[in-house]
Formats: sequence, C-alpha cells, structure tokens
Amino acid sequence: MGDLRVGIAGLGTVGGGVLKLLQTQAELLEQRCGRRIAVTAVSARDRAKNRGVDLKSVRWHADPASLAADPQVDAVVELIGGADGPAKALCEAAIARGKHVVTANKALLAAHGVALARAAEAKGVVLAFEAAVAGGIPIVKALREGLAGNTVLRVYGILNGTCNYILTTMREKKREFADVLAEAQKLGYAELDPATDVDGIDAAHKLALLAALAYGAEVDLVGVHVEGIRHVSAQDIEFADELGYRIKLVGQARMTAHGLEQRVTPAMVPLDSPIAHTEGVFNAVVVEGDFVGTTLFQGRGAARITSA
Amino acid sequence: MGDLRVGIAGLGTVGGGVLKLLQTQAELLEQRCGRRIAVTAVSARDRAKNRGVDLKSVRWHADPASLAADPQVDAVVELIGGADGPAKALCEAAIARGKHVVTANKALLAAHGVALARAAEAKGVVLAFEAAVAGGIPIVKALREGLAGNTVLRVYGILNGTCNYILTTMREKKREFADVLAEAQKLGYAELDPATDVDGIDAAHKLALLAALAYGAEVDLVGVHVEGIRHVSAQDIEFADELGYRIKLVGQARMTAHGLEQRVTPAMVPLDSPIAHTEGVFNAVVVEGDFVGTTLFQGRGAARITSA
Repeated sequence: MGDLRVGIAGLGTVGGGVLKLLQTQAELLEQRCGRRIAVTAVSARDRAKNRGVDLKSVRWHADPASLAADPQVDAVVELIGGADGPAKALCEAAIARGKHVVTANKALLAAHGVALARAAEAKGVVLAFEAAVAGGIPIVKALREGLAGNTVLRVYGILNGTCNYILTTMREKKREFADVLAEAQKLGYAELDPATDVDGIDAAHKLALLAALAYGAEVDLVGVHVEGIRHVSAQDIEFADELGYRIKLVGQARMTAHGLEQRVTPAMVPLDSPIAHTEGVFNAVVVEGDFVGTTLFQGRGAARITSA
Repeated sequence: MGDLRVGIAGLGTVGGGVLKLLQTQAELLEQRCGRRIAVTAVSARDRAKNRGVDLKSVRWHADPASLAADPQVDAVVELIGGADGPAKALCEAAIARGKHVVTANKALLAAHGVALARAAEAKGVVLAFEAAVAGGIPIVKALREGLAGNTVLRVYGILNGTCNYILTTMREKKREFADVLAEAQKLGYAELDPATDVDGIDAAHKLALLAALAYGAEVDLVGVHVEGIRHVSAQDIEFADELGYRIKLVGQARMTAHGLEQRVTPAMVPLDSPIAHTEGVFNAVVVEGDFVGTTLFQGRGAARITSA
C-alpha cells in the first residue's frame, strides 16, 4: 500500500505539535499502522515563522481550501479552529473531494458535526476527532468501541484544563479567581480572552460531543445548561475542603425520562469520587455503564503537544 | 452482511456474564457494530446448572473442541481459563479452522500468546483479548490504537483487584493480611486458593501482556520479577499513611539500557500519584508517553460481570 498522504491546516501549538509528532514518530507509526504516514502539504498564515520543524519537503498552501484540492493529499488534518470560517470551509471541501478529515475542533463539531458526519458518510470517508474531547485521552474510541457493549448510564468529567488549573491553584494557594486567572494568562495556561474557558463554553462543546457519542444522539449544544467558574470564591473552596469536597467544573450528561440532560456547572465533588483528585491542567472523563460499572479516563487536555 | 455467529466456551461467572450481555444488549450492539452478534453455541461442564440465562436457542457442546468445529460458529469466545489444557486446545483448533478467537485468559496468553498470535496471523483471523488485562478498562485498544503515536516511557498500574481490595481494607480497618484475606474469601473477592492473586502471579500475567503491547515485544512472563503482598503488615501500611503514601501492589514495565524491565512488587505510592486513590477491587493503568504525557485508565478488574 502507498503512503497515507496527509495535509495539515493550521500550524499553531497543536498543528506544529502534530507535524513534529508525525515526523519524529514516522517509523514507529509505520510499524504500528502497517502503512507510512507522510505529511505532504501544510497550510498556515505565516510561511516565514520559525516553528522548529522542517517544512522544506512539504508543499505550502496559503489558502486552506487549496490544501483540500491538492492531489497529493489523501487526508486533511484541520487544526485552524473556530466554529465557522476557514475551518468549516476546509472540512467541507475535503469531504466533497472524497478525502478523510481529522479535526480537533470541538467548536466546529458542536455546531456542524452532524452535517459534516452525514457528508462524510455519503462520500464514504472518515471524519475522525479523537483529540476534540479531552485531548490526549482516547475517550472517543473508548465510547465508540471499547465500551460499545454498555448502555451508558451517565458520562461526566472535568473537560477544561484551564478551569481545573485555576480551581486547583485557588485551593492550594488560597487565592481568588481573578488573581489566579491573571497569572494563568501570563503562564500561557489561559487565553487573553478567557471567556470560552472560564464561562464553561469549551467544556460545553466537549460535553455535547461526549453525550452524542454516549447516547447515539445528534450533537445538541443548545441543550447544554452552562455555568462557568467566575463566581467561585476562595472561601467557597475552603469551606468545601473542610467538608471533604473539591469544587470542580463538571460536565455531565445522562438520559432521563424527559430526554438527554446535559449540564456544565461548578460542583461539590466528594473526595472519594474518581475525579476529585484530577488536579491542575488534567482532564478526566468518567463513563458509567450498565455492565462495566464506573470507568475513569484521565490525561492532559493537551493545550500543548510537546515531546517529553 | 449475515450475523456474526459466536460460540462461548466456559459459562462460569465471566462466561455467563458475557452471554447475558450479548443477549441483553443485542439490539444496541447491532446498532453500534452494524452487524448482529448472535450466540449460536456454548460449551460448559454442567448442562443442567441454572445460570439465569436462556440456553434453549443455542447449541450445546460437552467438548470445547467440538465447539471450534461447529459450522454455525464464526468466532469462539474462550472463557474456560488455565494456561494449558482445554483452553489452549480450543483456541488452537478454532484458529486452525479459520475462526476468530476472543479470550480473557491472561495465563494462556502470557504462556502461549506469541504462538497463538502467529497462528492467527497466518490464518488471517483475529485474536482479541481486551478483557485479559484490567477487565472493563479498554487499555489494550488504547495502547494499540489510541496512543499509537507515542513511544511508551513507562506503563504501570494496579493490576489485581483482590490484592487492592485486601490492601485497601487493611488500611481502612487497620487489620492484618491473613484476617482480611479470610474475609475476602468468604465474600467471594478472593479464591479459596489465593496464591495466584496474593503472590502477584495474576498481576505478572497482565503486566507481561501490557509490556508486550507497549513495547512491541514478545510476551516475556519469565522476565517479570514478582513479589506478592503476604508480607505487608498493617503497621507498614499505617507508617506509610503517616508519611503520605499508600502501599499498593504495583506492576511496572519500562525500557532500560539493559532491555525491558518488568516487576510486580508492593510499592510506596505518594498521594499525588494518579494511582494512589484507586481503591478496593478497582484496577488502574498509567501509560506515560513521550507526546501525550501521563494518562490514567481506571475501572473494575471485572471479577464479576453483572448489569447494574
């Protein structure tokens, strides 16, 4: 079989990391996949920027749409971000040309995932999005395949590393939200516009995807009740601690008599809960299945992809 | 596509549970797999025994080898147990006849996994064993597929639920090993002959499989250094607790300059370790990858498969 020829659109932290991984681990991946994965083309805004990776041997596209049209690309990796605009156009164009699409874009999938999945199915191509939920944790595969014999009773977890880092630091250092947020922004753990994270929107995107996978339902972002962590105080956390609880931003989905219930809210988590000890930038997902019982998946939310 | 016709050999706790799951979840599994999974035949010692499942519609084989020869069986599920004898004979016979094999038998795989895998490859059939390591946790799939882009730096975990139950109870109730073991035997958490569990042998089987998957090596059970938990005292656990540690039976594999190092030993685990809070009959596996960092998978070791 010939190489699987991959085009990567978006060379920010994640895209640059993926390119580095595919180059560094090329031999290992070929052994494990039985086929060579070759990055043949990339697209990004600034060609001159030094990303610490070798771009000499790959084709450059200033326009992501032209990446989708490149005859030397079999599969497109979309890491541009954003629910609409170039990311959406790229994925649609790639699918229309019969190319596989890999995306880590939860905002895009939460808004247009159903339409993209239908288009991919009609064209007989794969729409893959393992990294869109909880980064390095293979939870999409676990829900779709590993736990497929189970009816999911409940799926919940800590889905935003920025919020978890802020809440962990507030507890450990007895500091207030605004203070810790400002520091997290300096350290690069929080965006300069932190609303998507601290208001629970990013967690809601991921929860909507998890719920759709767990319950075989269409993604329903509008149906997620969302509350962020801006109003959690150091005193709330201290009182919770004294009572044997951690305050976490928890995303939870379960099927009720009235349909699918999805919510993202700060919650009191007892210390014997499987997610109570998920600290800092880590994410965790708990799946409760009728046969398997409680399973926990924990790992980095993968704000950064860097080789250890 | 026609049904996937499954024959189950061994109808003990696990085999009966699998049969129940395949019958109860038949519709869900058909939706998720795109193909109906039908149990067409079973084999067990005692036909008359009441297992709480319907056996009227399935063919009965007193001899497991005749299950492998049944023309109405496409895939054999081996749940007899034991490293040799009928379990091995069944798997060999099934593969020789070009049938897929699913087994949860870690003792068999640790001893003969390489030979069985070679035979399956030669015949173009699947040898699947997700449940052989850490029961309900889809760690085999995670290592083979989800984390395939990573070089594994270290894989370790709590691989035996009986030992973890005993150590957890010793700490919580400040009781001695022999006392807790006797109670665990009464409750059915430990076998009447507990050596395989408490001497670390079962954990060693699982570690050898994990290490082979993680490092692309042949299973090397003989290379595992094994020490069980018989000599851990209530006082050891209490002192460890005072210092901020848990005592756990930890299986660990890592690649060193001198080759693969595999060991199962009681270990002092600091409270901020991802496995420190894995308590009772739960299992946990931590994979440290060069790109993904630390990922934790936790769930029941699945001594029992029962619908919640």
